[in-house]
Amino acid sequence: MRIAAILEYDGSAFSGWQRQEQARSVQAAVEAALSKVADQPIHVTVAGRTDAGVHALAQALHFDTSAMRSEYSWVRGTNTHLPPDVALLWAAPVDEGFHARYSATGRHYHYIILNRPVRPTYLARRVTHEYRLLDVAPMQAAAKHLIGEHDFTSFRAIECQAKSPVRVLRALEVQRHGEFVHIRAHANAFLHHMVRNLAGVLMTIGAGEREPGWAREVLEARDRRAGGVTASPDGLYLASVTYPAAAGIPDLARGMAFPDMN
Amino acid sequence: MRIAAILEYDGSAFSGWQRQEQARSVQAAVEAALSKVADQPIHVTVAGRTDAGVHALAQALHFDTSAMRSEYSWVRGTNTHLPPDVALLWAAPVDEGFHARYSATGRHYHYIILNRPVRPTYLARRVTHEYRLLDVAPMQAAAKHLIGEHDFTSFRAIECQAKSPVRVLRALEVQRHGEFVHIRAHANAFLHHMVRNLAGVLMTIGAGEREPGWAREVLEARDRRAGGVTASPDGLYLASVTYPAAAGIPDLARGMAFPDMN
Repeated sequence: MRIAAILEYDGSAFSGWQRQEQARSVQAAVEAALSKVADQPIHVTVAGRTDAGVHALAQALHFDTSAMRSEYSWVRGTNTHLPPDVALLWAAPVDEGFHARYSATGRHYHYIILNRPVRPTYLARRVTHEYRLLDVAPMQAAAKHLIGEHDFTSFRAIECQAKSPVRVLRALEVQRHGEFVHIRAHANAFLHHMVRNLAGVLMTIGAGEREPGWAREVLEARDRRAGGVTASPDGLYLASVTYPAAAGIPDLARGMAFPDMN
Repeated sequence: MRIAAILEYDGSAFSGWQRQEQARSVQAAVEAALSKVADQPIHVTVAGRTDAGVHALAQALHFDTSAMRSEYSWVRGTNTHLPPDVALLWAAPVDEGFHARYSATGRHYHYIILNRPVRPTYLARRVTHEYRLLDVAPMQAAAKHLIGEHDFTSFRAIECQAKSPVRVLRALEVQRHGEFVHIRAHANAFLHHMVRNLAGVLMTIGAGEREPGWAREVLEARDRRAGGVTASPDGLYLASVTYPAAAGIPDLARGMAFPDMN
């Protein structure tokens, strides 16, 4: 039987999603907890492998098992065995043809910047700190150059293993909320470090070091060396992964991030 | 010279504001950092002594010193010496008659509840987790019974040392934002545990265990034993302390809490 599940985690104390020797990974924590509930070894396949320090509001995954458990038991039981920085939000049986990675039609990421002179305290490692005042109007103008189907080689880590550098960036929004600047990115899929490299270019433009048109120059260069800094993982959240409605995977993205206090 | 300052902190790893032997206090951290910048021992007086686990978005304090430093040096220098979970946001000379506690005209607290079956991950210790579904309409109805000038004995910790149990509760708002429920309380001053005891009563009503009118019964009992549970400190934030405009203390409350991501 194939089970799909949705996972939330604080990435700050993990070496990233992927299981590694000698390092604390989300994958190892999740597989250990699921294996206890299933009483058999469980291997999970994830929608998007997040880097060290990157958080997830609603990461999607699937696994196969012969264990029969209720949806409630998968969620409740697994959470009992997970560490405090990971929690299963939802689980249910799905069609055998469902694949957490290949069935996905889109991914949403949020990038949160605390934009003030003083470093964060209660949001340390949960937001990216930028002391330079960011002007969101040029960031919004720059984002328009990047939306659409493009070769994103300039925004792709050198070690990226994707076969094609072409992605469809459906939305790239920049908004200020008080001392916070939010960047939201939606694409069919993302290349390695792509959101952080997009954020790095937008922040450079927001800080006034470059004009909005530089975003187009970077894109057209198709060369990572043209793209400037990779922004910190601290403020990056995999917000949701979307699937065809027939797959039956709920979109838990709404209301799952930070509450607005103002 | 008297200096006023505004402080942000993550209370989760502190035993509370007040200096104690053998425990990590915000006061000790702040006095140590200021003393290094001043190059002389500094004792600070705070607007509100927060309990263990309670956070501050804009705690106010004052101290006296003969050291001459620029406002920039107080903030930048002190932050260099403070641990990652505390930061000074602002500092400036004030009139000798200014007193962080006695000059204050009001305090604002925020209480943030993550209201869903599954525990928090990236907001662990930063929100209070409530798995029972809270209905905010009866909480809002209950809050109306509590607003105004009242004897808040029923909402006061047994060990509270305030001379009078009378406080003016100017606002008590309850709002839902997705999976979060926010309670905001504004008063001239609060008694010990008062916000957590107000939150406890509102949450009991929101969970359907009591009717909204119970809030009035608790208030009129003037007996702590009538008031039910003290809610967890995890989701409690001292949001701001207000002063007469002539004091020159900025209201940094806006935009300083969690960004709205939805």
